[in-house]
Amino acid sequence: MYEPFHGDGPYPASGAWVPGDAAGNRRFFTFAVDRPFSLECGERLSEVTMAYETWGELNDDASNAVLVCHAWTGDSHAAGPAGRGHPTPGWWEGVVGPGHAVDSSRHFVVCVNVLGGCQGSTGPASPHPVDGRPYALRFPVVTIRDMVRAQALLADHLGVARWHAVVGGSMGGMQALEWAIMFPRRVGGLAAIATNAEASAQQIAWGAIGRRALWMDPNFAGGDYYEAGPDGGPWRGLAVARQIAQVTFRSDTKFNEKFGRGLVEDNVFEDGIDLFSCFDVEGYLDYHGDKLVRRFDANSYLYIGKAMDLHDVGRARGGLDQALARIACPVLTVSIDSDILYPAYQQEFIHQSVAGRDQRTEHVVVGSAEGHDGFLIETVAVGSAIEGFLRRL
Amino acid sequence: MYEPFHGDGPYPASGAWVPGDAAGNRRFFTFAVDRPFSLECGERLSEVTMAYETWGELNDDASNAVLVCHAWTGDSHAAGPAGRGHPTPGWWEGVVGPGHAVDSSRHFVVCVNVLGGCQGSTGPASPHPVDGRPYALRFPVVTIRDMVRAQALLADHLGVARWHAVVGGSMGGMQALEWAIMFPRRVGGLAAIATNAEASAQQIAWGAIGRRALWMDPNFAGGDYYEAGPDGGPWRGLAVARQIAQVTFRSDTKFNEKFGRGLVEDNVFEDGIDLFSCFDVEGYLDYHGDKLVRRFDANSYLYIGKAMDLHDVGRARGGLDQALARIACPVLTVSIDSDILYPAYQQEFIHQSVAGRDQRTEHVVVGSAEGHDGFLIETVAVGSAIEGFLRRL
Repeated sequence: MYEPFHGDGPYPASGAWVPGDAAGNRRFFTFAVDRPFSLECGERLSEVTMAYETWGELNDDASNAVLVCHAWTGDSHAAGPAGRGHPTPGWWEGVVGPGHAVDSSRHFVVCVNVLGGCQGSTGPASPHPVDGRPYALRFPVVTIRDMVRAQALLADHLGVARWHAVVGGSMGGMQALEWAIMFPRRVGGLAAIATNAEASAQQIAWGAIGRRALWMDPNFAGGDYYEAGPDGGPWRGLAVARQIAQVTFRSDTKFNEKFGRGLVEDNVFEDGIDLFSCFDVEGYLDYHGDKLVRRFDANSYLYIGKAMDLHDVGRARGGLDQALARIACPVLTVSIDSDILYPAYQQEFIHQSVAGRDQRTEHVVVGSAEGHDGFLIETVAVGSAIEGFLRRL
Repeated sequence: MYEPFHGDGPYPASGAWVPGDAAGNRRFFTFAVDRPFSLECGERLSEVTMAYETWGELNDDASNAVLVCHAWTGDSHAAGPAGRGHPTPGWWEGVVGPGHAVDSSRHFVVCVNVLGGCQGSTGPASPHPVDGRPYALRFPVVTIRDMVRAQALLADHLGVARWHAVVGGSMGGMQALEWAIMFPRRVGGLAAIATNAEASAQQIAWGAIGRRALWMDPNFAGGDYYEAGPDGGPWRGLAVARQIAQVTFRSDTKFNEKFGRGLVEDNVFEDGIDLFSCFDVEGYLDYHGDKLVRRFDANSYLYIGKAMDLHDVGRARGGLDQALARIACPVLTVSIDSDILYPAYQQEFIHQSVAGRDQRTEHVVVGSAEGHDGFLIETVAVGSAIEGFLRRL
């Protein structure tokens, strides 16, 4: 079923991530060529590229555009088949596309790889304009607000003065929230799914431990691993970081259902009474660690994780309530009831804060054992909530 | 408040664990000198030593003995001041001692460092009888049942044919359960706190990821790090493993209360907008990682963690229900309602299984935000449940 991992052998990852090109539907937009793009941290970037995909057509008065924002290891490929540069089908297949909740036969749908990402947008793996070598840890820290301001420049470029709606789950929901707070007149509706208004201490803790695991990998080499070749990168550190995340993305119930106490089939020790015997759930974690290593840059994982920890809509705005009070559009919040990473109280907090100001707001709880990943997996229930919300806008 | 950890510097641990001696109250019992001790995995150990402490006096008919079993990184020092070999006071201070729930003025209380441990009992750091060098990964895998069978030999040595009660939390509860199942006539009462009848897939996952972090540390050196000196051991890997556990030991609520989004005081960047800025919760995790490294052997951490993953009272006994049906004494189960690692349903399962056979059983839910660590911290509520149970035996 899965390859067991015996600790002292090489990590099973046999290949590493390579950035995609303009394959398929993907387009690029470059800005900050003449004038640098200032970041919240105080540093500046020049020659910033955003990779994006679009579905459907922008109507004449440019009123039908919907922005879909992706999560940690997502990219611009929200929908569509696998292909060159896209090893898997769209990450929100069934929610985005013609006839789906975010309906590309009615809407002009846009999805942008975030600033700091590794699927075409400028990030730590991009060449530094001065020496042409990858930024690596020379890349400045980016925040959710920086990601959103970069998307706003792309919106200008696409002729979208105002989004009909901005929709996202997890880190995508953080971007959607910042959109509605930073640019209240540019957002007609906000759908924030399995997300938060600020990262909690527990969320920071999980991210921080993953970073420590990655830093510990000797092949991380201070982030300067790009020339190390497919066997030399920090794949084990990235895999451990991903495994931590993977448990928080699912639920105890789901793990019991899916794995229980099964052993991987090719265990050397049939009864599992050995230090290196491998339970099914371990095989699953190794599989997911390996899978991420093949498709994602370790430095991007680090920077985007930090952006989520730094996420706090109240920062420099007088606190959460004052920040949320800037939202001027109808709001949908969605919770997955088994989500242990983004517990329902975080979405209820957003909902209550908006409702307290007599702003139109809907809160939907999706009953599911899938945990946080439910926002990706429960396409029918999540899609139905989004579809109804968009229809009523 | 806490030392921040900047990833590319050395791990702040400045010293490493050294095993304690017979200081204070600690005694040693050695067995398997003439005849090896067979383990569940099929291997054998000779010259096995158990470190233990006792409080109070065994009465004339040896009917007042209570065994207290420790958890993952615990030891025989359940109660008493810090001192040589014991850097901290007893781990169940307030629950064990004269006038407390496990009352040493009435009971003869015994606590044994587990087989595989590193506080005086034989474990991976002990000298291999053949070459005198530490076993390291040559140490055979041990199970909870092996730990209990070793304790049973100590009980014989102490003249305790039957425990008045066996009491434990977390891994201590696993031992208590195995005692009541393996030796039903030797246990007068069983108190199983914040524990399980079998490790769940999620519990295995957390343990497994910690092991992968430890294996990844280049200083782990396949477990053969004992001669590396205080700066050369796998302290970073052990710290990361501990940090994972530390989050699962607490609760979201507690972390919000205790840390929120505070930054460590000596952050270089006051606003924290930096890749290496450090939130308070990160300082806390680094502190706990560092603290464990100074007091615990990495290989013991590995072996004991594996013993918990292998824990399944139903193994080779026809399943959980048949195994639990062997219990012939009154049972107390205690849950901490905010425990995310050992959720209440695991203790309720034990309670229901025992209750279903008309066996005397009590189930107490402790309301607390402390999470799994509540079994150590909520000494009043947990102590009160144990005290009542022991009184009614």
